[in-house]
Amino acid sequence: MKALDSLALRSDGGRLEILDQTLLPGTERWVTVTGPAHMVGLIRQLSVRGAPLIGVAAAVALAAFAEAGAGSAELRAAAAELRAARPTAVNLMWAMDRMASVLDRGGSARDLVQEAEAVFAEDVCLCEAMAAHGLTLLEAGETVLTHCNSGGLATAGVGTALGLIRRGWEAGLIRHVYADETRPLLQGARLTAWELGKAGIPHTLITDSMAAILLREGRIDRVLVGADRIARNGDFANKVGTYGLAVNARFHGVPFHPVAPYSTVDRDCPDGSCIPIELRAPGEVRGFGGQTWAPVDAPVFNPAFDVTPAALVTSMVLDCGVFGPDQLAAGALGRLGG
Amino acid sequence: MKALDSLALRSDGGRLEILDQTLLPGTERWVTVTGPAHMVGLIRQLSVRGAPLIGVAAAVALAAFAEAGAGSAELRAAAAELRAARPTAVNLMWAMDRMASVLDRGGSARDLVQEAEAVFAEDVCLCEAMAAHGLTLLEAGETVLTHCNSGGLATAGVGTALGLIRRGWEAGLIRHVYADETRPLLQGARLTAWELGKAGIPHTLITDSMAAILLREGRIDRVLVGADRIARNGDFANKVGTYGLAVNARFHGVPFHPVAPYSTVDRDCPDGSCIPIELRAPGEVRGFGGQTWAPVDAPVFNPAFDVTPAALVTSMVLDCGVFGPDQLAAGALGRLGG
Repeated sequence: MKALDSLALRSDGGRLEILDQTLLPGTERWVTVTGPAHMVGLIRQLSVRGAPLIGVAAAVALAAFAEAGAGSAELRAAAAELRAARPTAVNLMWAMDRMASVLDRGGSARDLVQEAEAVFAEDVCLCEAMAAHGLTLLEAGETVLTHCNSGGLATAGVGTALGLIRRGWEAGLIRHVYADETRPLLQGARLTAWELGKAGIPHTLITDSMAAILLREGRIDRVLVGADRIARNGDFANKVGTYGLAVNARFHGVPFHPVAPYSTVDRDCPDGSCIPIELRAPGEVRGFGGQTWAPVDAPVFNPAFDVTPAALVTSMVLDCGVFGPDQLAAGALGRLGG
Repeated sequence: MKALDSLALRSDGGRLEILDQTLLPGTERWVTVTGPAHMVGLIRQLSVRGAPLIGVAAAVALAAFAEAGAGSAELRAAAAELRAARPTAVNLMWAMDRMASVLDRGGSARDLVQEAEAVFAEDVCLCEAMAAHGLTLLEAGETVLTHCNSGGLATAGVGTALGLIRRGWEAGLIRHVYADETRPLLQGARLTAWELGKAGIPHTLITDSMAAILLREGRIDRVLVGADRIARNGDFANKVGTYGLAVNARFHGVPFHPVAPYSTVDRDCPDGSCIPIELRAPGEVRGFGGQTWAPVDAPVFNPAFDVTPAALVTSMVLDCGVFGPDQLAAGALGRLGG
């Protein structure tokens, strides 16, 4: 395999390593991936996260397994196991389907490696393409709000929504970023604040419930978020909290845009009601990081994602362009190439 | 002083103790209050919290100081210091103004003790009156959602919104309660879940951002919250997160009611823009309970409260009745007795 180098996944051509995102920002620990089963565990426990990155990481792990001499049956089983590691983000399924089709046509280990390298390289390009299209929306000096983490830690490239924010700041179009902390797993507080700090982009961290105040006071020009799965009609799943934020953005007349690559679109899914939502362990809500602050037996509801209807989307930024409500309603996403 | 006994404040007639709410639910530690300055610290650090309770606690602490022999000048200085301990909840100012007017008319230590006892006893009655009026809104078998803690820990009695919930559950009108965890200080996760568990009321804990999903899915019949200060026109301040929740309740057509005693109404305040909002330390958003998960230098915005306009209130439950939007708009709150 070629050498790969991104913010949270790297390979020297032999050893594949991931940055354990559960330990950020306190500790930057790189973990050597021992095989597909190990990668499944790393994805499930969110050491590797971000819809585009988990697809890339799964493809690269499968390719490394092929390079290490795994047979076709082993590779198919591993691909199936990786594909099922998390149920909501569709990029993972898309990446595994690409790898499986190489196996289907009798491809060699070399072919699998080339496919994984292509998935990685394509993700880098897709990020830049999303940013380029998204920049056309921005006016000079905007303050934007984002939720969860959709940056370099969530992709092989500069990111989706946070990638656009970074390129927008470099272009002088964005001057300040508010980051929702994103309970329960605090990807905004831990990962987005860390990325923004590293990049020197002026930012302010808030709890999720404070966003409404800023929207009401006219302090936010635009809301930019990632997506984990987009239905054909433009409904989309993203980190829990996105839907309530979209409602508040609409109520206050603030533009709201998901930013995602075409691989996030699930053309088998007509609308948001078909998107499966992962329910996670109650302990994630009862506390954080080994600390439990709620009663230890408190009953909990813990969906990892929610679905925002296309009706609340001002426009959707993809790598292939910006899609407005009329285009979404007319089925533009069902006709995307890819 | 008479013996006083509530969930978080008690006195045997001599020693005044408060339950340190910052340690709940893990530890139930009673702290002996040594004087007014000590009580100011306990209020500032949220060991004593809840708009009605901080008014009661300040009055009782001042009365105990008088009983211990403090002179008039000392008592006036202590009342002023207590009155300024937190800037948003008006009940504290109301209680201190009651005590100051006893001093103004040359009242004795005994008079101050009687006034504090009256403030305590009245708060117990006000809670029952709010619950009685609120019960008239409920239909059988409702599922309700609440934010922060407005129960026995926040008052001398059964609570405001959570008091109504408790009485509603006892009456068979409420069958399930969803509790927002209420970042950053997690009063919902720590205090409301603890109170509901102790009372055996069926409940589910969620992060603040999950409420919108439940509202969208029709799983919430009503939202009930407390209030820290109500302006004459019905705009009200409550724990941060209330405003965004009110927007979501309105968007989904779910009834939304603040529940508060008349002492929460600030008749000097024509509308929400006059309510001062306390800004607290950035460390509260960067982590919790000694644990910091965000970058240690992440810039933070941390308002403790937000203001919900009367326009988003379905009706307001006070101890003296239920007030609809027309009554609020017609200035009913400006004409309250008390």
